[in-house]
Amino acid sequence: MSAGHAGKPKTWRHWLYVNLHPPARHRRGLSPLNRLVVLVILLAVGLAILQSEPKLYVGNEGLFRAAEIVLAIIFLAEYAARIWIAGENPDYGPSIAGRLRYALTLPALVDLVVLVSLFVTLVGSEGVVLRLVRLIRIITLAKLGRYSSALNAIGSAIHSRRYELMMSLVIAGILLLVSSTLLYMIEGEGQPDDFGSIPRAMWWSIATLTTVGYGDAVPHTVIGRILAGFTAVTGIGLIAMPTGILAAAFSDALQRQREEREARARNREDR
Amino acid sequence: MSAGHAGKPKTWRHWLYVNLHPPARHRRGLSPLNRLVVLVILLAVGLAILQSEPKLYVGNEGLFRAAEIVLAIIFLAEYAARIWIAGENPDYGPSIAGRLRYALTLPALVDLVVLVSLFVTLVGSEGVVLRLVRLIRIITLAKLGRYSSALNAIGSAIHSRRYELMMSLVIAGILLLVSSTLLYMIEGEGQPDDFGSIPRAMWWSIATLTTVGYGDAVPHTVIGRILAGFTAVTGIGLIAMPTGILAAAFSDALQRQREEREARARNREDR
Amino acid sequence: MSAGHAGKPKTWRHWLYVNLHPPARHRRGLSPLNRLVVLVILLAVGLAILQSEPKLYVGNEGLFRAAEIVLAIIFLAEYAARIWIAGENPDYGPSIAGRLRYALTLPALVDLVVLVSLFVTLVGSEGVVLRLVRLIRIITLAKLGRYSSALNAIGSAIHSRRYELMMSLVIAGILLLVSSTLLYMIEGEGQPDDFGSIPRAMWWSIATLTTVGYGDAVPHTVIGRILAGFTAVTGIGLIAMPTGILAAAFSDALQRQREEREARARNREDR
Amino acid sequence: MSAGHAGKPKTWRHWLYVNLHPPARHRRGLSPLNRLVVLVILLAVGLAILQSEPKLYVGNEGLFRAAEIVLAIIFLAEYAARIWIAGENPDYGPSIAGRLRYALTLPALVDLVVLVSLFVTLVGSEGVVLRLVRLIRIITLAKLGRYSSALNAIGSAIHSRRYELMMSLVIAGILLLVSSTLLYMIEGEGQPDDFGSIPRAMWWSIATLTTVGYGDAVPHTVIGRILAGFTAVTGIGLIAMPTGILAAAFSDALQRQREEREARARNREDR
Repeated sequence: MSAGHAGKPKTWRHWLYVNLHPPARHRRGLSPLNRLVVLVILLAVGLAILQSEPKLYVGNEGLFRAAEIVLAIIFLAEYAARIWIAGENPDYGPSIAGRLRYALTLPALVDLVVLVSLFVTLVGSEGVVLRLVRLIRIITLAKLGRYSSALNAIGSAIHSRRYELMMSLVIAGILLLVSSTLLYMIEGEGQPDDFGSIPRAMWWSIATLTTVGYGDAVPHTVIGRILAGFTAVTGIGLIAMPTGILAAAFSDALQRQREEREARARNREDR
Repeated sequence: MSAGHAGKPKTWRHWLYVNLHPPARHRRGLSPLNRLVVLVILLAVGLAILQSEPKLYVGNEGLFRAAEIVLAIIFLAEYAARIWIAGENPDYGPSIAGRLRYALTLPALVDLVVLVSLFVTLVGSEGVVLRLVRLIRIITLAKLGRYSSALNAIGSAIHSRRYELMMSLVIAGILLLVSSTLLYMIEGEGQPDDFGSIPRAMWWSIATLTTVGYGDAVPHTVIGRILAGFTAVTGIGLIAMPTGILAAAFSDALQRQREEREARARNREDR
Repeated sequence: MSAGHAGKPKTWRHWLYVNLHPPARHRRGLSPLNRLVVLVILLAVGLAILQSEPKLYVGNEGLFRAAEIVLAIIFLAEYAARIWIAGENPDYGPSIAGRLRYALTLPALVDLVVLVSLFVTLVGSEGVVLRLVRLIRIITLAKLGRYSSALNAIGSAIHSRRYELMMSLVIAGILLLVSSTLLYMIEGEGQPDDFGSIPRAMWWSIATLTTVGYGDAVPHTVIGRILAGFTAVTGIGLIAMPTGILAAAFSDALQRQREEREARARNREDR
Repeated sequence: MSAGHAGKPKTWRHWLYVNLHPPARHRRGLSPLNRLVVLVILLAVGLAILQSEPKLYVGNEGLFRAAEIVLAIIFLAEYAARIWIAGENPDYGPSIAGRLRYALTLPALVDLVVLVSLFVTLVGSEGVVLRLVRLIRIITLAKLGRYSSALNAIGSAIHSRRYELMMSLVIAGILLLVSSTLLYMIEGEGQPDDFGSIPRAMWWSIATLTTVGYGDAVPHTVIGRILAGFTAVTGIGLIAMPTGILAAAFSDALQRQREEREARARNREDR
């Protein structure tokens, strides 16, 4: 991947390139600098979360503002650094055109959106969502290392069984419709607020099928409770189905890995 | 399946046949026309759901009525088209007798029931269930394509382990009975409304065993709570059992697929 | 098993023996007579359940009494029949000593206990538990047929992983202790009724760890809620662990079955 | 492990060594003496739990104090015995230096901490946590025997899939953040107490994602309930993911065991 960049980094720009751009690193895992970047992003997200709580925010506006400015400067510096080091990347090259090409890649655009969101919130608008956009930044960093292979494993397992998983969702949808229609017909008159229409009964039904069971809407009649019992039992099936599908998918992936390893070992023996 | 129908559709009827009758299509997946039909069915179901909500229905009766009429006409047109194109189907043939034979197949009868239900609800009766009957229509379309093989995979996995799954249900039933009897004996006197008889205690018991936990009925005594704790832990076992059974069944199916593929590959090598 | 009893049943006693004693039957499944016995037992259990509900019982005492008497007579007749047909069973023989030996086997003793419980409740005592003892009867019948092999499969899967499953329980117990101690220390002062001691906090903890979540006891402080969040996440782990263990055990059993079948097939080919 | 210690124990010290130090025992499982120690520890933990309940403690202070003193003496005796028998252990030797080396091993230090905690609580401070520290003692005993191999199996399964499991946690964290932000924006104004900030909405979100569903905070608006429904369905995915990963890991471990056994059997045949 980075075969041409072996040896010690020679210039500041090269050092930055190796430490900010994960594929340019020869060792596994994130570089200390990128770990710092992840930490700053998490801090920014944490700040956005805490800022939404009036008990913390009111009275500490100055503090939060100061922290925001510091974070904005760090993100700006990182963005500038990434544009600068794009010159070290053989994919883009040191020309301005190459850097512009880098600036138009998805990770760079995400960085830009995050940066803009930071300055927009600094100017005054109270966009929480904008603040949380920073979280997307982690994705541009999380693409490499051990975790990414774990994420790939999960993703490919889900992908290989996507039709079965979607089918479970469709079955869940049908059960949701059937149970909420039945409860609407049975409990609708007695409890018009909670079961007075199918959409209302759906709120109860989804809480029951997913075994969440808030308990704010609950059938009162005997038949309603019997049907609710069946719905709850069905809910266990709805948990069991995707879990079983995923378990089989993960098992299959592990099995295939083992067999490939064995096949390779056998090939070596045969020679 | 449709070997004799290769090449471009020549007539309108043939075009309709290829686009409405999934097995006559040479490509995988639903045709655009059938996708439209699925969409119309989902719209009709959505309409039936929304219609049950007084806040939406009262004041918009005319709008809902108009939508119902439009849907009824579309379903009628689709039914007529399907009868018409039965002539293209080598299984039935273009004669009236052939079309009648088609009209008596299960999918066609389901279509008819849905159609009748539509006109019955149009005339005025408020049957929500009748309205939702349209959902069954999807089954007649969903029978093909990738999703149907996923549904088959789920179905055959459940079927191959049906005795174990039913046994889990029986064990669940016994646990339901035991826990509700115990709670009835312990909490019955203190809370006659919620635990005053075994059937009443069953409502609490099923909510606990399925880990739904509405919280509307809850034991108050120390012994009752200890028993409730055991019931809740047992509930986890009741989730784990069917999930484990299904996971093993899905794994087994995947394993068999892989071995069949390998066996075929080995056979080819041997030749 | 019943090699000496082939051919048509010749006497009434033999007919009864073949139809009441499952191993004496040449076909799989329960005989129609034994199905009837199961049905009567289920009816008796259902009666005991309904009888506990005052709304049903008060006013219908006579009806329930009559049904109880009928059931008692049927169970008495079945018990007598089983003693009588023990003479056909080569394990016991037609002598009185043989029948006495049968009467002292576990299934026969269970039958006797059930019978005695029936007559005791008839005389007047209101023992619900005694009434439900009848359920145990099903076990003496359920020992054979397809379901019993499914039950064996579940049982042997659980048995093969019993140390891992018990270890999950031990881990669950430690988590229960840790979380209830922490919540007691944090929420104890503010909510003495729900968190004022470790045993009290355990009620909340078990409802959270099993994801039942009644909602009758809930932490109010910020730290309490953070700890409750961790407890709830841990609860998912406590569901995942036994489920994963059981899934692996079931998979392993299926895998072994398949390999045995293949080994047998290979042996046949080698000859 | 204890090859040099075969035959009958000759001295009291040797007898104690064999019965208190699990690896010195030739048979599997815990010795009767160690079983007693485990029982005493469990009693001490149980006592600490019950002591926290005012209804039990107030009025019985003397009784609890007496029990504590008895337990303290037993633990002291056990600690002294373990230091004494360290002389039998070839790893440490009978010299004072050897015993000191034993006293500085982790299990011995844990024992000391537990002992100190016991005497500190005896003197009067009300530290519940100190009292529960005794639970850690079990770990020093539980390190051997069948259960430890089960614990190892669970531990190594979790360890082998640690990146996937941590990835599930990260995905759960992102979903927690997204759902609580959305609900905060939608329900925040209507229910400032429960959804007035992201951290507040997180309490609802974690109860929903883990399917605990206390029901103390529940969305009231239509959009809020639709989003809550999606959150609950996502929660099922969050249960399915780690369960599937663990199931595959356990399956893989069992499979590898079987293959190793088969490989060994084949090797024996080849000779």
